[in-house]
This record gives sequence, structure tokens and C-alpha cells, in this order.
Amino acid sequence: MDIGRIGILGSGSWATALAKISLESTPEINWFVRRDDQVQRFKATGHNPDYLSSAAFDPERITFYTEGSINPFFRNSDTIILVTPSPYIKHYLKKVKRSSMRGKLVINAIKGIVPDENLLVSEFLIKEFSLPKEQIGVVSGPCHAEEVAQERRSYLTTGAYSSELAHLMADTLSCDYITCTTSDDVVGIEFASVLKNIYAIAAGICNGLNYGDNFQSVLISNAIAEMNSFVNTVHLLNNRVITNSVYLGDLLVTAYSNYSRNRTFGTMIGKGYSVKAAQVEMEMVAEGYYGAKCVRELNTTRYRVNMPIMDAVYEILYNKQSAKETIERLSLKFR
Amino acid sequence: MDIGRIGILGSGSWATALAKISLESTPEINWFVRRDDQVQRFKATGHNPDYLSSAAFDPERITFYTEGSINPFFRNSDTIILVTPSPYIKHYLKKVKRSSMRGKLVINAIKGIVPDENLLVSEFLIKEFSLPKEQIGVVSGPCHAEEVAQERRSYLTTGAYSSELAHLMADTLSCDYITCTTSDDVVGIEFASVLKNIYAIAAGICNGLNYGDNFQSVLISNAIAEMNSFVNTVHLLNNRVITNSVYLGDLLVTAYSNYSRNRTFGTMIGKGYSVKAAQVEMEMVAEGYYGAKCVRELNTTRYRVNMPIMDAVYEILYNKQSAKETIERLSLKFR
Repeated sequence: MDIGRIGILGSGSWATALAKISLESTPEINWFVRRDDQVQRFKATGHNPDYLSSAAFDPERITFYTEGSINPFFRNSDTIILVTPSPYIKHYLKKVKRSSMRGKLVINAIKGIVPDENLLVSEFLIKEFSLPKEQIGVVSGPCHAEEVAQERRSYLTTGAYSSELAHLMADTLSCDYITCTTSDDVVGIEFASVLKNIYAIAAGICNGLNYGDNFQSVLISNAIAEMNSFVNTVHLLNNRVITNSVYLGDLLVTAYSNYSRNRTFGTMIGKGYSVKAAQVEMEMVAEGYYGAKCVRELNTTRYRVNMPIMDAVYEILYNKQSAKETIERLSLKFR
Repeated sequence: MDIGRIGILGSGSWATALAKISLESTPEINWFVRRDDQVQRFKATGHNPDYLSSAAFDPERITFYTEGSINPFFRNSDTIILVTPSPYIKHYLKKVKRSSMRGKLVINAIKGIVPDENLLVSEFLIKEFSLPKEQIGVVSGPCHAEEVAQERRSYLTTGAYSSELAHLMADTLSCDYITCTTSDDVVGIEFASVLKNIYAIAAGICNGLNYGDNFQSVLISNAIAEMNSFVNTVHLLNNRVITNSVYLGDLLVTAYSNYSRNRTFGTMIGKGYSVKAAQVEMEMVAEGYYGAKCVRELNTTRYRVNMPIMDAVYEILYNKQSAKETIERLSLKFR
């Protein structure tokens, strides 16, 4: 097994951070971005014109692909890292031929569920492409892209069904400022990274409603317990330790950090913005907004775990329930 | 069992917050502060002149006791809440006669270990006064005094060997803005509240050294695992869930909040202040400074748990080790 040539599918902040990290250990990468004008500006300036512009790149080491060339992008890459916002991934993947996917290693770095399908990205790859589990991985961890651009010490976890793939990814993504740990918990990591965005929205809502630090810490304590119940119901794994950085750390960095767009989105909701107004103002997708709908549907129809925090976020975002009253009711369930 | 008349021993921020909470459910309290001039200013202004001045009190509902009257203070109280800084508790308790302590309920709200003795406060009460375990409790939780003064929704956990006492305390300390949970984990809660101050110093040191949010979240994830190892070694308890708010929440509120004096102290150390200079500048005791010494000694001589974070804090504070190099070495152990 060889990581070979990495292809990055996506051009947001996290995609840009993973491109930067990939280029620390591999000489050249492929990079799929949407539009030609993005590529032209990227080549002219040496940085992504739209996201994480503080990260500098040598355009000579990047082969760009744009809309219409997704199949050559897949064929010419050995390992593809999927890192678009979750609502867009189906749009791209449905254009990919099974033959282009054959033999590829596919790493999910999307912190969301495939909408409509309500499938994890790993499940979608298996269902749509019959991709063998041994070729599927996930990369996650408490890692704001902005701090990767600044090369500040950060930690990632690479998860795969194949221990060989998990270690291969860890070797590839480790560098001076990134430490990688391996895991076999693909499904747990994928769900945790969906849930933490929902909980970060909850943290933001409470912040917007003027709850304090004391309350936030209790919210997070209850959230990690809720996450633990859910992932243990979905996929029981004896060696999963929910306080590991890929679960708890990722929740903390998202729920507490000012870089977090999910928290910011929640804060606006807590302050009384409508969902629409908050989305327009932010000009960014808050993954947890989509995540709440997917997890709610999955949980209602299938897992039936007691998830008061997720339910509260769902009710506020989708059923126009009063944030103030919903969080007040939620606070009675905390301990 | 009846909570009776509560006596507060101590006059810092947390003592003042607990006095305020106690007065929500009981008509009058006893309050031991050190000096007569403090009492005079308290009575004249209706608030503690030195700490948490934003909390208003009706002096008519408080009977003050000062240095020299500790035995009457104990005799005239039914339930005594100990809430001095840990370095001072022995000074007061050694003046208390066994006869004054007889039959009292004694609740520990000190987040530290009795120095020199290296005993938990609950252990010290048993050893020095032969106080029956059924009369000993602890109150802890993620609760900055400042937010209690503002009556912002907060959570406490009351722990006792006797379930009746734990519930009695919870009933007494619950009010509109405080929710109480009960626990039987006296020793675990006491140690957790010592450890979280040490980890908050670590968080501050890393902050002072300019590590970012990504790193902080990994530090906290590793810290809660270290806390879990230690308390499980000291006192194995099958029903302890380390993500409960009395453990994880208390760590979060201390390590992440700007109100935290331990974090602030650590930040100054990380920025290059000496321990002495940081203490002079802050004019406040950072409990974790004493806690690190006590836990280090206990762990070295008795428990021998692998505690790289506690060790790093100890080496920096007591052995003049370079913060930068010590944290760099520590970071290699994280995952």
C-alpha cells in the first residue's frame, strides 16, 4: 500500500489546510477546485484567493482540476481526500465513474453526513461505488485550519478499517507541526465530527442567550456524554475512549473557539437572528445546521438514543421553537 | 439529619458565593472572617469589601465571627462549610476543639490539599477530629463565584459518604440559579478539584507560550484522561463517569475561563514571569501552585500514576525548568 499522489477535493479552509499538510511530505498534489478563475488567481498569488489566504503555496507543485474534470482528477490521484462541505459532496461524487474510483484510497475529511441519503461518507462510498472497506479512511481531530496555516502545534487522528492504511495516512500527514494518532473507529469518528458541530451550535446559542462560562462547561460535559451514548449505540467499540482528542478535543476546539463558524452561527441564533439571516450574514456554511437534520432523522427512525441537546438544536433551527424557552427546558435536564 | 444553621469559614470569592447561595434557603448564617475591620466594612456596605463585592447581603441575616472566636463559631453552627485557601485551613482547624466539632456536619469546599500533611480535607477531619464519615461532605462543580454573584445558571455537585447528607446538601444549596446533583465520590471529587487547578495552570502556561486553541483542546483531553487514571488509582469506583460536570466541567471552566486565577497565573509563567513575580502581581493565591506540590509528593511516594502534565507543571514551578522546553517535551506525549 502506497499513499501515492494525493488529490484534494474541495477548496475551503480545511481543504486548504490539508493541501498544505500534504505538501509537507509529498512533492506534488492534485487539487480539485470549482472554477477556472479560482485557479488563475491561485496561480497568480500563490495562495487560495477565498479561504485561508495566509497559507502560502508553490503553484508549481499543484495540478489543478476544475468542474468538468472530476474523472481525470480521480484517475490521476492515488489517494483522494474528500473535503467539501457535506451538502456538495453528492453533486461531485455522482459524476465520478466507478472505473475512476477503482483501486483508489479515499479519505473522508468532511465533517458531515451525505444529505437526503443520511449516510456517512464512508457508507456512501461503499454503497455507491462498492469501494472495499480497506480503501476507506477518515481524518479528523481538533484542528482549526487557521492554526495549521500558522504552523502551530496541532494533532490529527487517522482512522481506517485497515491498520496499514491508518498508519500510512498518519505517516503522510505528520510533520513538524502536526502529530497524528491512528484509530480503527471510522464510524465513531465520522459521527463524532458531525455531532460536535451540532453541539458547537448549542454552545453558541447559549452564549447568544447570555449564559455564562459555568453553564457552558456543563453543556459540554452533557454533550460529550450524549455523543458517547450515540456512537456507542450506532457502533459499539470496546476500546473507544470518548475523552480522546479526536472526540472530546474536537468538540472542545469547536465549541470554545472563536474560529468556529458553528459556534458563531449559534451565537447569532441565540441573539435572535433567524436561520436565514444568520446564514446570509456569515456567508459560510455551518455544517452543524445540516448535521442536526441528518442526525435527528437517523435517530428518530433508527437509533432512538436520548439526545436532548441535539433535539433542542433541531427544534430551534427547524421548528422555529424559541431559543430561550428551549434552552431553559434543556437546562433542567443537565447535571 | 438537619442542615440547621450554616457556618461559612472563609471570606474569599468562593466563600462569599456559598454564603449567598446558603442565604437563598436558610434565614440566617454564621460567617467566620478574619478581622474585625472586615466585618465593620461589610456591615457598613452590605457586601464583602474585598472579594465578590458585586454580591449584596443583608448584614442583619449574618452573625460574624473573627479570629479568636473560632470555637464559638463552630459551636453555634450545625453545618460548617470550609472554604479558605488550602494553605490556611490547618491554621484555623488546629484551634478548634474536638468538643466544638462534635456532632457537626462539615462540608469541604476547599479546592486543595492540606499542606505538609498531604491529606485531603476530608481525611484531615477524620484523622484530627475522628469525625464520623457520615458527617463529612464535599461541594464542588464548575462554578465561578463571579457568575454566582450574577445569578447566572450554574451547577454544583454535593458529595457525601451518606446519601442522606448528599441529598440534604443538594436541597439546601439548590435555588433559582443553582442546580445540585448528588454523588458518593467524596475522595474523587476532592482530588479532581485539586487536579483541575494544576491543569488550569498548564493551560495558562501553554497560552503564555503562544500555543493555540488546537493545542489547548488536546491538552485538556489528555488532562482529563490523566485525572481519570489518578482518581481511579487512588479510589476505584465503578460508577464514576469522568465526563460528569463535577470532573470534566470543573476542569473546563477553570482551564478555559478568563475568571480563572490558576490559568492567569500559568499564563504569566508561560510569558516568562518567575513564580514569585507572578504571585506578587496577582495578589491572589493560585491553588494549583500548592496542589502541584502535594499531588507530586503523594504520587511519587505512594500512587505512582503516569502523570506527565502534573509533572511538567511541577518541574516548571518548583525546579525552575524552562517552560518552553518542558512543554515541548510534554507535547510529544500527547495524542
